Amino acid sequence: MEFEASGIGEECGVFGCVAAGEWPTQLEVAQVLTLGLTALQHRGQESAGIVTSNGASPPMYTAHKGMGLVSSAFPPDALLKLRYGNLGICHTRYSTTGMSELQNCQPFVVDTLHGKIAVAHNGELINAHALRKKVMRHGVGLSTSSDSELITQLLALTPPMEEQDAPDWVARIKNLMTETPTSYSLLVMFKDVVYAVRDPYGNRPLCIGRIVPVSKLHSSGLWVMTIFVSFLVLRYYREVLPGEIVQISKHGVKSLSVVPRPEGDLPAFCIFEYVYFARPDSIFEGQMVYTVRQRCGRQLAIEAPTDADVVSCVPESATPAALGYAQQSGLPYIEVLCKNRYVGRTFIQPNTRLRQLGVAKKFGALTDNFAGKRVVLVDDSIVRGNTISPIIKLLKDAGATEVHIRVASPPIRHPCYMGINIPTKEELIANKPEFQDIAGYIGAASVQYLTVEGLVSAVQEGIASLQQKDKISSNNKSSKRVGHCTACLTGKYPVELEW
Amino acid sequence: MEFEASGIGEECGVFGCVAAGEWPTQLEVAQVLTLGLTALQHRGQESAGIVTSNGASPPMYTAHKGMGLVSSAFPPDALLKLRYGNLGICHTRYSTTGMSELQNCQPFVVDTLHGKIAVAHNGELINAHALRKKVMRHGVGLSTSSDSELITQLLALTPPMEEQDAPDWVARIKNLMTETPTSYSLLVMFKDVVYAVRDPYGNRPLCIGRIVPVSKLHSSGLWVMTIFVSFLVLRYYREVLPGEIVQISKHGVKSLSVVPRPEGDLPAFCIFEYVYFARPDSIFEGQMVYTVRQRCGRQLAIEAPTDADVVSCVPESATPAALGYAQQSGLPYIEVLCKNRYVGRTFIQPNTRLRQLGVAKKFGALTDNFAGKRVVLVDDSIVRGNTISPIIKLLKDAGATEVHIRVASPPIRHPCYMGINIPTKEELIANKPEFQDIAGYIGAASVQYLTVEGLVSAVQEGIASLQQKDKISSNNKSSKRVGHCTACLTGKYPVELEW
Amino acid sequence: MEFEASGIGEECGVFGCVAAGEWPTQLEVAQVLTLGLTALQHRGQESAGIVTSNGASPPMYTAHKGMGLVSSAFPPDALLKLRYGNLGICHTRYSTTGMSELQNCQPFVVDTLHGKIAVAHNGELINAHALRKKVMRHGVGLSTSSDSELITQLLALTPPMEEQDAPDWVARIKNLMTETPTSYSLLVMFKDVVYAVRDPYGNRPLCIGRIVPVSKLHSSGLWVMTIFVSFLVLRYYREVLPGEIVQISKHGVKSLSVVPRPEGDLPAFCIFEYVYFARPDSIFEGQMVYTVRQRCGRQLAIEAPTDADVVSCVPESATPAALGYAQQSGLPYIEVLCKNRYVGRTFIQPNTRLRQLGVAKKFGALTDNFAGKRVVLVDDSIVRGNTISPIIKLLKDAGATEVHIRVASPPIRHPCYMGINIPTKEELIANKPEFQDIAGYIGAASVQYLTVEGLVSAVQEGIASLQQKDKISSNNKSSKRVGHCTACLTGKYPVELEW
Amino acid sequence: MEFEASGIGEECGVFGCVAAGEWPTQLEVAQVLTLGLTALQHRGQESAGIVTSNGASPPMYTAHKGMGLVSSAFPPDALLKLRYGNLGICHTRYSTTGMSELQNCQPFVVDTLHGKIAVAHNGELINAHALRKKVMRHGVGLSTSSDSELITQLLALTPPMEEQDAPDWVARIKNLMTETPTSYSLLVMFKDVVYAVRDPYGNRPLCIGRIVPVSKLHSSGLWVMTIFVSFLVLRYYREVLPGEIVQISKHGVKSLSVVPRPEGDLPAFCIFEYVYFARPDSIFEGQMVYTVRQRCGRQLAIEAPTDADVVSCVPESATPAALGYAQQSGLPYIEVLCKNRYVGRTFIQPNTRLRQLGVAKKFGALTDNFAGKRVVLVDDSIVRGNTISPIIKLLKDAGATEVHIRVASPPIRHPCYMGINIPTKEELIANKPEFQDIAGYIGAASVQYLTVEGLVSAVQEGIASLQQKDKISSNNKSSKRVGHCTACLTGKYPVELEW
Repeated sequence: MEFEASGIGEECGVFGCVAAGEWPTQLEVAQVLTLGLTALQHRGQESAGIVTSNGASPPMYTAHKGMGLVSSAFPPDALLKLRYGNLGICHTRYSTTGMSELQNCQPFVVDTLHGKIAVAHNGELINAHALRKKVMRHGVGLSTSSDSELITQLLALTPPMEEQDAPDWVARIKNLMTETPTSYSLLVMFKDVVYAVRDPYGNRPLCIGRIVPVSKLHSSGLWVMTIFVSFLVLRYYREVLPGEIVQISKHGVKSLSVVPRPEGDLPAFCIFEYVYFARPDSIFEGQMVYTVRQRCGRQLAIEAPTDADVVSCVPESATPAALGYAQQSGLPYIEVLCKNRYVGRTFIQPNTRLRQLGVAKKFGALTDNFAGKRVVLVDDSIVRGNTISPIIKLLKDAGATEVHIRVASPPIRHPCYMGINIPTKEELIANKPEFQDIAGYIGAASVQYLTVEGLVSAVQEGIASLQQKDKISSNNKSSKRVGHCTACLTGKYPVELEW
Repeated sequence: MEFEASGIGEECGVFGCVAAGEWPTQLEVAQVLTLGLTALQHRGQESAGIVTSNGASPPMYTAHKGMGLVSSAFPPDALLKLRYGNLGICHTRYSTTGMSELQNCQPFVVDTLHGKIAVAHNGELINAHALRKKVMRHGVGLSTSSDSELITQLLALTPPMEEQDAPDWVARIKNLMTETPTSYSLLVMFKDVVYAVRDPYGNRPLCIGRIVPVSKLHSSGLWVMTIFVSFLVLRYYREVLPGEIVQISKHGVKSLSVVPRPEGDLPAFCIFEYVYFARPDSIFEGQMVYTVRQRCGRQLAIEAPTDADVVSCVPESATPAALGYAQQSGLPYIEVLCKNRYVGRTFIQPNTRLRQLGVAKKFGALTDNFAGKRVVLVDDSIVRGNTISPIIKLLKDAGATEVHIRVASPPIRHPCYMGINIPTKEELIANKPEFQDIAGYIGAASVQYLTVEGLVSAVQEGIASLQQKDKISSNNKSSKRVGHCTACLTGKYPVELEW
Repeated sequence: MEFEASGIGEECGVFGCVAAGEWPTQLEVAQVLTLGLTALQHRGQESAGIVTSNGASPPMYTAHKGMGLVSSAFPPDALLKLRYGNLGICHTRYSTTGMSELQNCQPFVVDTLHGKIAVAHNGELINAHALRKKVMRHGVGLSTSSDSELITQLLALTPPMEEQDAPDWVARIKNLMTETPTSYSLLVMFKDVVYAVRDPYGNRPLCIGRIVPVSKLHSSGLWVMTIFVSFLVLRYYREVLPGEIVQISKHGVKSLSVVPRPEGDLPAFCIFEYVYFARPDSIFEGQMVYTVRQRCGRQLAIEAPTDADVVSCVPESATPAALGYAQQSGLPYIEVLCKNRYVGRTFIQPNTRLRQLGVAKKFGALTDNFAGKRVVLVDDSIVRGNTISPIIKLLKDAGATEVHIRVASPPIRHPCYMGINIPTKEELIANKPEFQDIAGYIGAASVQYLTVEGLVSAVQEGIASLQQKDKISSNNKSSKRVGHCTACLTGKYPVELEW
Repeated sequence: MEFEASGIGEECGVFGCVAAGEWPTQLEVAQVLTLGLTALQHRGQESAGIVTSNGASPPMYTAHKGMGLVSSAFPPDALLKLRYGNLGICHTRYSTTGMSELQNCQPFVVDTLHGKIAVAHNGELINAHALRKKVMRHGVGLSTSSDSELITQLLALTPPMEEQDAPDWVARIKNLMTETPTSYSLLVMFKDVVYAVRDPYGNRPLCIGRIVPVSKLHSSGLWVMTIFVSFLVLRYYREVLPGEIVQISKHGVKSLSVVPRPEGDLPAFCIFEYVYFARPDSIFEGQMVYTVRQRCGRQLAIEAPTDADVVSCVPESATPAALGYAQQSGLPYIEVLCKNRYVGRTFIQPNTRLRQLGVAKKFGALTDNFAGKRVVLVDDSIVRGNTISPIIKLLKDAGATEVHIRVASPPIRHPCYMGINIPTKEELIANKPEFQDIAGYIGAASVQYLTVEGLVSAVQEGIASLQQKDKISSNNKSSKRVGHCTACLTGKYPVELEW
């Protein structure tokens, strides 16, 4: 399933880094930040922003924000501008609400009586509406509809600030966590440190690690980012725990506090990160996403076996699930489609009639591989149902005798209020009348989905086996018991919704 | 004197308009706003912004901001976006301070407990530093270094806001005027009205008028803008008085209040508006700027007569002063230079050696007009002294036997803290040692400036004669006594400077 | 009269330069060429091209062409690319015909058996159609509709080329001049020389001069260009004579030949260059254009005196004529309009109703200068009649009691086939019925034009007085007798038209 | 292997189409042409051009050319301009030589005595140098270094043209084929027909087919293109034979002539099309490229078996070969790398030190899939050897115990003079001393290449089996005997090289 076509989107990714050792650093902080943004680009292509600090007293902050991909938002002169940073945070944004686009772009920097802070935020505050009222009642004007501005003003507001007080941002962050339980993964930069904060339910991912020096002449450093994607210079250390505040500075990583959840509540990490958003080489809860997807494919083969000749998938995101299905079922894995890599980039609008050819124009059929055969086509999800139909037609025109659709996740039926952009209930194929005969509707021989139970077990199986091996993590109270947010599939939200 | 070369700049212009009669209006509000911005373009070329309101309850505000000239900041799709406005305010910005350029761009829109307001501001708060501290002590984070954000947060903050209260923005504006005496001309848009506010000293200009319908099918309306520049659709009505709050709505113009100055203080309208910034067809204090400049030229001829053959000027801004000098002195007015209109637009960087040719490359010498003659060259001001020198050389190379410089304003010697960007003290030619022999330094036969007294009398003479004629205005307390800010020439500031 | 509004346009300008002395030169040839193009920008804003040669054997030519103004067509990397040139030619283009825009852009470079030549051309071949047939009959395919490609292929074709022959481009140019008598001013670059060629009738201007070194470290050089516009580095030497081939090289200027006109024919320099196209500081036939225009104004005051109070003009091109009219008539010269310099640059399209405000939106009325007065408004030409009308209305609305239009040139009535783009006969106001009552049509109190005789005498008076003074030029056979092309005014073409 | 990194490139692709039935057609010719260009985008990303004809007498041709990808070269207004076309040809270009980039862009249109023709060309004339001399000796100036201009002028030149003659372009094309034997696939458009021409050796591919109507309301048509890539609207018919001239018009396809090769010579279709350039769903000589690549993988497993645990490849082009290797060897196929799809688009230049991380930054390691295992990594070719090395390091760092490289084609050792851009001999890894110990040099456990014989048999095996099945094609004389150009691998060129 293509991101663009599905209408599903994550709201943002965050990345931060701090150079270790002597400052001015030999680590190119601005370059590391843009590399981090690029690695998170699939979580937001609409705008991007970087703020660096030189870490001095008072600190000099430098910011650059731009629309579009990181590559166009950060031309060479922007990097030049940012070159004095010894630490920094950045943000890539998926969608924009509110009046002025660039204005909503993060990180936010505000000046307070205790100096400037910069904030980058991934997630969505479940009680945002009530918090806005509260802040405005205090006489604060809010210039955007962004939760991140709201967070920043909340940090400035409580407890009351006096000029003579020492800045105590940790107390302010803890206070914030009592005012709003989920969902956020947050970076707060103040002078020479970055605070990495994950909400008590751990709904959004956040992890930390080390930057290895490129050569003996260079500095090392620390990073924090939404999801880990491997780079030669980045080494994974661990996830930030639900409710944890971690301080990253030139002196290293320090866990400052873990704010607890209400008694009895489980963590609620977003299960859709596994299914859909994350890059296959990302690591959550100790396991690689590719492996989880492969397990989903195996589970699907158990739940929904098919009498067919070959297994394949729509390139490229469903490949691990298809390989898992093939391994479990014993059917051979083949390729059925090749992708024209240039079509996606084109803005040429063929007229209405040619547009009917739609999605399929992106793909060429590898006819010889499947002509005369019954094909199992594995996809990772079906959101709207409008892209799979022309692909099935393409395969049948090219000689497939049957096309069976197997979906490696359950149908999405409910909205997300914690940071994922999901099409309206009406647009979701699972809520449409035609879902009753989905196979007929899209022209498939049969359609079957993975069950919620199947998905949860495929995800949690790996964590269980890990926890047996790993003594240290099982001692840690917060992560001992396992739980995931499946609200978009089941309608069960981890906290009560306030309106 | 060319704006670009001098380094002097006004910080911004504002424009607002409201459609009269039935809404949705037949007046194209977005188009009128861009025309207004274009008319004010000479007061700011760095960025521009428009906010419109549909005037409904609650109002829908639409904003667009962009970098560069109005023409590039407002492409056709921006106008489309703004098309539902029945009223709106806009702003064009000269220079940018602070971290992110577009972020500082006005108008500012903020959401408060009483709804959204939009603010556009021309001027500079003389006690900005103290006010920032005050606001931040209240727990408000400030996201820009802009006075306009500060004004907006001050309006939200005092008096304290309660949800059940009716919005009373006029009380808040009055309170603001007690907190900061100068300098600002302000537009505040709330739902279906625009408040036009001028500070008690009247330091920055602001005037209002009527929009005449283009045909019988169209609506009329009201406008407010920094300076009046004639358009076929815009009719001048009057200036906003120092300290006055005027409300503009679909029902017409209404003067709500005039906040007084401290007893004994005179108005302090910026005298440099006459000398330098305003378009020659602008009207201040009842008189046309062109006429004032011509009077300056006449006064200069009286104060600094020359034994010469012809009078001319550097095109184009000094023409009225040169014509005034010619009329008073009896010497013939001729043209000595023609301008290559394309040179100014070029970004081609000739290398260092060719750059030495500098300013003069813009001009061609009209040799036949002055070869063998003694030329009086009138300029409106000499700020840095680095542009007049190559022009004198050009004229002498082309055959002028003597070039006498006569400057139709006094030398600038002091910084402005009320909204005008003036080069540092060190850069001002009047503060340099070479000013002692300025004529020798720039290669002129002689150099003479208009005196401060001469300038003030040339400006105030017209007002005096107007007040004799105009009974109504002489009854008005605020404008009865005449005064102008000459701080950049004399160092006497209208209010005490706070730091 | 504004160029843009009138629809009249010159087809192109050419510029060439050669560095003197040792090569690689210390003269920045690419920079000098872009400065030359900028100086000629008013003769063509649609596209521009530069070709440089390093002058070696074989030469390395480098070309860059681009659409739009010189400033956008030549970004810094284009100059970098051209930096090894020791000589070069360039071209700026007004209008484009033919299929592909950039393709028609000059200079043309072609490879021949005798090596590469580059050609830049200003003018229009009066027998182009017949010449194209001739070339194509020879088996040559023509890839553009441009006369310049045609000229280049003609140079390659005749006389027949043999590899062992020495290149003799002068013979080829002479042959070309026998095939096509007018109109062209031509630059032909071959290896290390530039040939400057003017057609036997001298219809298009062309002149040559010297480049003075910027400092002792730098080289001097030679230039050739359509019209001379003064620069600090450019010194005027003389015009290329009708029919003359001048060679410019590092060794200096050399007149190679003067191809004669048919017995009895006069030169036919385009009189409209004086009236309209040239910058006022340009020099033709020994006289400055500004002075000629002033004489036209004087002559107009004699032919068409007015009972009025003041004389003015539409800024800026008619100023010399207005000053001349004022001097001759004894009426005071004043300014009545000021121009919003930003309006012309805007691409914002106000809707149809606001567009009615048209041209007048560019101008502010300087009311005080003329309220209650009868105004003589001098313009340099009236081509279509659609721009003067709203200006008259603006002045009358602002208080002018009468507006008398005096036009400092005769009405245009005929097409030009020699390189000037003139609106169709139907669009010319002089050919419309409303011309019978032109004053009533445009709302003026009266309208009067300069006569053809008046124009010719104003132009030729200066040449006559020059020739009396200048013994050298009167010895020169070609320029002895004076003649001008007035075809667009009289319908008398200098040579018979072939179709 | 990534195209960008390897430095190998095909020079261009061509596409043409003609609407069948009544004109003006209901087939959107301009849209079909841009779709065709997009499908060929992988064969050239530097510039693109389209020329359409309305097919009338005389025809109106419309051209648009632009730099960059089809999507940026053809904005909506370009399509609007081309909308009257009933037939057209287009071209996408890989690399640019010569002075002015856009100028070299095809198709070329030239006006001749017999009317305008348009020419698009894929390939490189093996005797270009001698032909240029010949044309220039005739007095023709050549304005580009492009073979396509040369072809066009040759068509115009011989036989001699007379106005009264009927145009006979077929005779001219036949004459051209006797002057230059290879390599070219050529489209020549004249008025209402397109001639599709393939050189006698069939070195470059060219095929034809039918456009099926999108609905009953629409027209069908015919297409011709470099390689077939499946689209819903395009149906494959057959290849143009070596030496064949095919006419495509509204009346259908007509084979006009087959110009023979010298006695004894075999066809010489470029074998690298199979290995490298073509999209996997393309069809050459009756077989799908994907299948040929899979056979190459199988053959490689036979020639170079490995004692290892898993088989994988660098995504994405080597997948079929890797799957073939896995099938033949019995080892499991897994994925080892995932690609960051955004990295390739970035122009951010990390500094030198970060650049050392190079290629590997594009990929994330799917660690769990191969940690502790011995990996066979199949690649399609190794050209320079500088991209595979960091990938091997990445895999070993992530836990692979051994990495064996198997290359599914023989080493490239020789230049191509028939249209393929190959790095210089010095840059080719196969010609470097380190090739002796290539495995040590790149850090692999072992490296083995497919043999030339292995490649040829993998390619020709499919053709042989086809010819047995297909009676029609075996009757056709030209294609009976099979041969391929392997010059870049063996140094044996199909015709003698002239210089």
